[in-house]
Amino acid sequence: MTEKREYGEYPEKTLYLPGPTEVREDVREAMCQPTFGHRSGRMTDLYTTIVEDTKDFLDTDNDVIVLSASGTEFWEATTLNLVEDRVLCACSGAFGDRQANVAERLGKTVDRIEYEWGRAVKPGDVRAALEASEEGYDAVMVVMNETSTGVRNPIEGIGAVLAEYPETCYVVDAISALGGDYVDIEAVGIDAIFTSVQKAFAMPPGLAVCVISEDADEREREKDSASWYGGFQRCLDYYDRKGQTHSTPAIPLMLAYRTQMKHMLEEGHHERDRRHREMAEYTREWAREHFGLFPEAGYESRTVTCVENTRGIDVAATIEEVSERYDMVFSNGYGPIGEETFRIGHMGEHTVESVEALTDAIEDVAGL
Amino acid sequence: MTEKREYGEYPEKTLYLPGPTEVREDVREAMCQPTFGHRSGRMTDLYTTIVEDTKDFLDTDNDVIVLSASGTEFWEATTLNLVEDRVLCACSGAFGDRQANVAERLGKTVDRIEYEWGRAVKPGDVRAALEASEEGYDAVMVVMNETSTGVRNPIEGIGAVLAEYPETCYVVDAISALGGDYVDIEAVGIDAIFTSVQKAFAMPPGLAVCVISEDADEREREKDSASWYGGFQRCLDYYDRKGQTHSTPAIPLMLAYRTQMKHMLEEGHHERDRRHREMAEYTREWAREHFGLFPEAGYESRTVTCVENTRGIDVAATIEEVSERYDMVFSNGYGPIGEETFRIGHMGEHTVESVEALTDAIEDVAGL
Repeated sequence: MTEKREYGEYPEKTLYLPGPTEVREDVREAMCQPTFGHRSGRMTDLYTTIVEDTKDFLDTDNDVIVLSASGTEFWEATTLNLVEDRVLCACSGAFGDRQANVAERLGKTVDRIEYEWGRAVKPGDVRAALEASEEGYDAVMVVMNETSTGVRNPIEGIGAVLAEYPETCYVVDAISALGGDYVDIEAVGIDAIFTSVQKAFAMPPGLAVCVISEDADEREREKDSASWYGGFQRCLDYYDRKGQTHSTPAIPLMLAYRTQMKHMLEEGHHERDRRHREMAEYTREWAREHFGLFPEAGYESRTVTCVENTRGIDVAATIEEVSERYDMVFSNGYGPIGEETFRIGHMGEHTVESVEALTDAIEDVAGL
Repeated sequence: MTEKREYGEYPEKTLYLPGPTEVREDVREAMCQPTFGHRSGRMTDLYTTIVEDTKDFLDTDNDVIVLSASGTEFWEATTLNLVEDRVLCACSGAFGDRQANVAERLGKTVDRIEYEWGRAVKPGDVRAALEASEEGYDAVMVVMNETSTGVRNPIEGIGAVLAEYPETCYVVDAISALGGDYVDIEAVGIDAIFTSVQKAFAMPPGLAVCVISEDADEREREKDSASWYGGFQRCLDYYDRKGQTHSTPAIPLMLAYRTQMKHMLEEGHHERDRRHREMAEYTREWAREHFGLFPEAGYESRTVTCVENTRGIDVAATIEEVSERYDMVFSNGYGPIGEETFRIGHMGEHTVESVEALTDAIEDVAGL
């Protein structure tokens, strides 16, 4: 067990992680306001403002829940709320695997479509698995943006397949994508899509956002058992009746959310999507020039680039030295590919210019 | 549905709610620091510091989890982690009822011991229910401090009964009590006890603390299914291996937690307990003089006084006027007893002097 207990002083670093990412100063400062009651009119004002602003930003009429939790809580909640028995999980990296493990730990029967890390989930494989199943599935779960491999899975194409299976819910983990990679939630037919706010929303961590279709809401209401904390019904009924949350929420983070959502609405979702495309294109070009790209061609993420370490640099040492000399933090590869790859998060407040500052620093330290 | 969407300006109010409560300025300001990575050494420093400080403060060697969620998430997690089939819930108010409802929604068989609101759970009744059950229970769940009725249930006496039933876990919801009402967790034999930090810990809302016995940890490991987000095993293994949390936590709230825990350790748990006793005694005396006490005699809460509205004042109007004229906020009765009672939260940073300022204001407005 780690024995450290004296939290010290730390210099400020610019974050190019695949989340958490940089947060504007006025968004951070919004957290300092004195607390108020979670059953007050002020809370109703705050919560309805952030929920309705989120619907505007995401361009959806579906219901929105802002829950005090990490986005990964919705792995559990969507399973408990939508899966009676059987679920199909598309696994093409660490987070797809994890989602499948969560459903298994919750006692569900889980079938997996497995891919080598770096490869993307293919709609045809989902169709084949659905056709091959005698009993069918209560839900299909896909990670939109595999943060571990930098793969952006074709959730639109998978949605087109699932449109032919109305009894099967479509659950999308969009944790490191939503807000930086436009998705037309209703056109794609997604029943539940969720994110964590410390990624492309560029807020401090601690809140999760989930968008729920009417079908998903009805499915949960018909089920004999469901989640309580992440229960759609419970969250949505409280919102409809009182404009509040069922439990005391993380009020300071919601104050930050409100401030940042104003910035996001000002920029606009499509413009934000365009800026993320630009950053992704710049980073990929840089990676191709100096290293390689880990993800399957054509499926590269718009918010995190996973660079293949074709030059055999010492990834850990490079990260350490860039942090020491430039106060910039990027990420090693995930788990088993820790030294074979490294990851640059380009999301939220970043721009091509700020990402270029990092790639310059890496070039300098790695002697490129 | 509430249509408000323009969050406005609000004057600062002093909170005498049964939570959230007043938060020190330096604790709020700690939240504004720039974010850092949740897989960094800095995160390990922060998380191990708050976990070990909490063990020190609570005077326990049991394991501690600090989860990004409301305390009520542990209603769900303790049920999923510890209850295979059957659970006994002691219901003497809104939160005991809710805990039972949660277990039912999660598909468990729930037996209830029911009391009229305002009455306390009796150890003898728990013994009788355990003796009467042929199959026995996986767990008994009790709310230590019924925030809805101002009753402090005798969790020590119930623990003595449960000591004779080693196969039955003892789960205590201590949400509005822990940190203001001393409990010897190991001596009482509690397997899981949890709180929300915006109550007697006097922190901003958004984190929950749960203390887990070795038995509870083992029980979960043996189970076929369990919670993932609030899974003891998953949280504790991550702590033991990395000193971190399994998912990105609410880092700003943990920075606030660290700052406030230093204040709490400086005061000391026993001294904090003494101060809360003083506030409770003052408030009860005031209530007896001008109104009545709602809870059964001898079972009054140490952190929230539920006053019986024997004079028939207009509770809602009085709260409104005290808020308008004095910028102090207290609470009406809970749900069905909204006008029959009102509640004064005396927890966290409050003192007899600060509580007296509120009771003076109530006297003034109500013409006492």
